[in-house]
Amino acid sequence: MKFFKNIKKSRSSSNEIFYAQIKKMIGFAPKNLSIYEQAFTHTSLQLKDKKGHPLNFERLEYLGDAMLGSIVASYLYDEVPDANEGYLTQMRSKIVSRDHLNELGRDLDLLRYLKTKTSKSKIGANIHGNLFEALVGAIYLDRGFNYCLKFINKKVIAIYVDIEKLEGKITSYKGLLIEWSQKCKRNIKFEVYEDTGNQNVKHFSVKLFVDKKAVSKGRATSKKRAEEMAAKRAYYVFQSEIETLL
Amino acid sequence: MKFFKNIKKSRSSSNEIFYAQIKKMIGFAPKNLSIYEQAFTHTSLQLKDKKGHPLNFERLEYLGDAMLGSIVASYLYDEVPDANEGYLTQMRSKIVSRDHLNELGRDLDLLRYLKTKTSKSKIGANIHGNLFEALVGAIYLDRGFNYCLKFINKKVIAIYVDIEKLEGKITSYKGLLIEWSQKCKRNIKFEVYEDTGNQNVKHFSVKLFVDKKAVSKGRATSKKRAEEMAAKRAYYVFQSEIETLL
Repeated sequence: MKFFKNIKKSRSSSNEIFYAQIKKMIGFAPKNLSIYEQAFTHTSLQLKDKKGHPLNFERLEYLGDAMLGSIVASYLYDEVPDANEGYLTQMRSKIVSRDHLNELGRDLDLLRYLKTKTSKSKIGANIHGNLFEALVGAIYLDRGFNYCLKFINKKVIAIYVDIEKLEGKITSYKGLLIEWSQKCKRNIKFEVYEDTGNQNVKHFSVKLFVDKKAVSKGRATSKKRAEEMAAKRAYYVFQSEIETLL
Repeated sequence: MKFFKNIKKSRSSSNEIFYAQIKKMIGFAPKNLSIYEQAFTHTSLQLKDKKGHPLNFERLEYLGDAMLGSIVASYLYDEVPDANEGYLTQMRSKIVSRDHLNELGRDLDLLRYLKTKTSKSKIGANIHGNLFEALVGAIYLDRGFNYCLKFINKKVIAIYVDIEKLEGKITSYKGLLIEWSQKCKRNIKFEVYEDTGNQNVKHFSVKLFVDKKAVSKGRATSKKRAEEMAAKRAYYVFQSEIETLL
């Protein structure tokens, strides 16, 4: 009986769209879609499950916060083998800071999935980070720790974590690139365009040209961050040249 | 070559003893014994690995602390399905409190494995909890998250975590049992004996008799806790009777 219900449920077209969106976002197939639905359900709806337990993202947010903490700890442990406890603790707080999590949630445009009675614009900026944590909690419940690790490595660490920058060794890749271009007489140009994408969040896309050849791209919710992203990617392209020159 | 080295290494008798001790303590076979050796190496030895990275338990302690946090969060999430974020956060801090971790480390007598230049008695009480966290970190590195979960469920949660008590609903199982015995005219008796076990930590073992029949046991590093442990176990034996009467 339950099986048929699920089949029926999975065939509804709105669920199919949500399934595809989640799959694309997390990078693998969700098994139990209802957990992800809960991750995007605001308390204002005052929903309860069959047993009378509250059905909203708050508990998943708590779970996701804990998972994120341990996964980032494990990443830093491997990544910086000579760092002591104090350094590791400090770096972890930087990575999982409220601002950073809000940025992540905003970039993934998680707000568009939120079901709420309250107006989305009135919920406050932390909703982005909270939804991000709830998503991590949902992935843990649905697919277990290793998938959670996979998601965080791909969507958080690979894109946002930059040890050099967090340590303050590099403050701006854009600045570094400009300095390099001036010293070696190269022409660099950032081409930025606004990109609405969807109704909630405005994105900026950037192409970076070196001597008129496109070498990298960036996309983020602020022009500055999109440029920095493209600059960082270009930095890795020219790293040996830049390091010799600067 | 590395293989032969490992074989040779695993054959040394002190390593064999350590392997057996760790295996017994964690409940499954360790794969890389050197990680556990690191978990019991104090900074005072100032050891470094081949790459010049510090070789002591401090980084593992950091890793274990993070793993412990996420595993306890996951346990509470499942165990208390109607609890909100605030409750879950509060309960987790109680479970992973410094006092509690020190108790765990002391009960497992982790200090006996510690290699240090400083006198063990001068290291301070937190060493017990720190070693416990380092052990958790070592298990994570050696066998992964699911084994870590297994260990924490068996050694922390099953033995030490009592939601009723943490919530303050039950403050003392011993008290409850005495109250019950008086109301229903049963004779209860705690039989306690000191139990040295090993050189570092004194343990107390308790047998609890109800109407001269032994119904449960407890063992801990304080008489009070050993009695409480036995009382809790007896409570579950007589739970329906006790709940009807009190």
